[in-house]
Amino acid sequence: MNKFSIGVDLGGTNLRIAAVDDKGALVEKVTLGTKVSLGRDHVIDEMCTAIQHLSDKYKRSASLLGIGIGVPGIIDMQTGLLRESPNLPGWAEYPVRAEIERRLNTIVILENDANVAALGEKWLGAAKDYSDVAMLTLGTGVGGGLVMNGVIWRGANGMAGEFGHTTVEPDGHPCGCGNIGCLEQYASATAVVRLAREAIEKNPASALASASSADPEFSAKTIYNLAIQGDEDARRIFNYVGRCLGIVLSNLVNSLNLPIYVIGGGVSSAWEAFSPAIFQELRRRALVYAATAPPDPNASKEGASAHVQSGPGHKTIITRALLGSDAGLYGAARLPMVTETQR
Amino acid sequence: MNKFSIGVDLGGTNLRIAAVDDKGALVEKVTLGTKVSLGRDHVIDEMCTAIQHLSDKYKRSASLLGIGIGVPGIIDMQTGLLRESPNLPGWAEYPVRAEIERRLNTIVILENDANVAALGEKWLGAAKDYSDVAMLTLGTGVGGGLVMNGVIWRGANGMAGEFGHTTVEPDGHPCGCGNIGCLEQYASATAVVRLAREAIEKNPASALASASSADPEFSAKTIYNLAIQGDEDARRIFNYVGRCLGIVLSNLVNSLNLPIYVIGGGVSSAWEAFSPAIFQELRRRALVYAATAPPDPNASKEGASAHVQSGPGHKTIITRALLGSDAGLYGAARLPMVTETQR
Repeated sequence: MNKFSIGVDLGGTNLRIAAVDDKGALVEKVTLGTKVSLGRDHVIDEMCTAIQHLSDKYKRSASLLGIGIGVPGIIDMQTGLLRESPNLPGWAEYPVRAEIERRLNTIVILENDANVAALGEKWLGAAKDYSDVAMLTLGTGVGGGLVMNGVIWRGANGMAGEFGHTTVEPDGHPCGCGNIGCLEQYASATAVVRLAREAIEKNPASALASASSADPEFSAKTIYNLAIQGDEDARRIFNYVGRCLGIVLSNLVNSLNLPIYVIGGGVSSAWEAFSPAIFQELRRRALVYAATAPPDPNASKEGASAHVQSGPGHKTIITRALLGSDAGLYGAARLPMVTETQR
Repeated sequence: MNKFSIGVDLGGTNLRIAAVDDKGALVEKVTLGTKVSLGRDHVIDEMCTAIQHLSDKYKRSASLLGIGIGVPGIIDMQTGLLRESPNLPGWAEYPVRAEIERRLNTIVILENDANVAALGEKWLGAAKDYSDVAMLTLGTGVGGGLVMNGVIWRGANGMAGEFGHTTVEPDGHPCGCGNIGCLEQYASATAVVRLAREAIEKNPASALASASSADPEFSAKTIYNLAIQGDEDARRIFNYVGRCLGIVLSNLVNSLNLPIYVIGGGVSSAWEAFSPAIFQELRRRALVYAATAPPDPNASKEGASAHVQSGPGHKTIITRALLGSDAGLYGAARLPMVTETQR
């Protein structure tokens, strides 16, 4: 390799650091637990030691393009302060970027983790043939990232891409953000479990109820397993997840008309269970999707889409992410290659 | 002036052609009725004659930058075909651009009218200090346009900015587009009248009911007049209009974090009646709006926004359009100044 960069995925659970070359090949990856309980300084120590190690090791034979770090939370791009980060208690309002730069004695690029994942999928994953992509990451919460013209679209305050907090049910479930009816309340792992508990309350004799009392770690995965075994309650939950995702995706299609939308995160493993409902909503709600999609094999002749003229042009793609948990790591490594630092 | 361009606003009712200089000053404007009933060729004849007249008149003293035309409908940017246009019957699938270029013997730029209005407001109107803006035009329907990095964001098929067809009520009123619960069904002039008729059915002894039977042209304007006189039914309607706009705007804020959102079109004259509900929704539903907005004077101390930390950074602006029906004309004239033709 001639050139490489170092990417860091700083999560609430894992801290991963990788050297990646400019073609996207992984050179070396270091995985550490994020010892959040030992405090901020300890985590930054470990991170900087690993970065320094990789930098020293490969700088002899190739040139280092820079260091990119994906962080869960809202970053003030001008000051490099982490404004809010629910998964990193004690980090809020801390000058993360300045501190890391001081220790490493070089410029680093800090970016929101969901934006970084979108950039990773755009560089090497599901969206690699496209310069515009929206990504939704379905995990404990619902994160989002937007890449337009090949670069992350941050918006005026660095807070673009918060698709998880767009309203899908105007009078819906309260969300931690202060809103009600956010997508996050219907398409995160947390939401799937809550929806299951609501279903169990209504039907305490159900298979869901037995699974819940048998399994102390009753999770979205358990519920997915029931769904693919044909359990009606579990299927209904994922159908609803897909419906809510489909509404938000339709709104994005109508607003932005991007060529591709990528869905990642742990819950995306349940793709088979929720994706049919996504496509059903898109056919009805997204003008350009309906106009360019292949005919629905399930639609009756007098069905809903009489108004839709199938026409030429780019077909809208909704697809699963390809890089799994590595999207953030590759995206972080990509940052120094595509970002013009404004300092 | 040194340089000028010619803009055309081709509406279902009026056909307006203007020479505008590169500073945005109006040189000359021609207003004609769009004689849709006399057929497509007649309208194109009239348009081309007027363009030619302005071109000949001013080309002697200044250089012509180009010709831009705003058209209601979906345009295939590659071929210049008008794919669909409900307000121009008989124009669908017609090679409008090629025909006009043939007659004028020069290159013209065709663009969707809502996009062009957004570009106009960005150039000379409410958004003139910003390079990114979303515009909603509340008329018979609800149009939308998006300008990012100073240029119109068309999307992969030229169908971006269809905010009027984003879903605001997942189980709501059927829309002509095939979806249900589109913003257009709650925030257009047509919707205001429908909502009033629904209210009249429930309350046939109301002031709305009397106004409706007294006025053969019972319109959104009549209903607005009742609202500002304090009629509860009429106020409730505009409150609902504002709520629906507020939800869609909140989704845009969370997704794009643009600095400014502009609301135009005839219904925007009722700003006083519907805008308070917009801001109420934004405070609750739009993360970055809530984080940067001035404190709500009406909120109680223990009110909803305990989660909101007021912080630094750009304040999100939601405002009325400034150019009225001229936005489209100026935007069309602006097209040749900012568009790189890909032919």
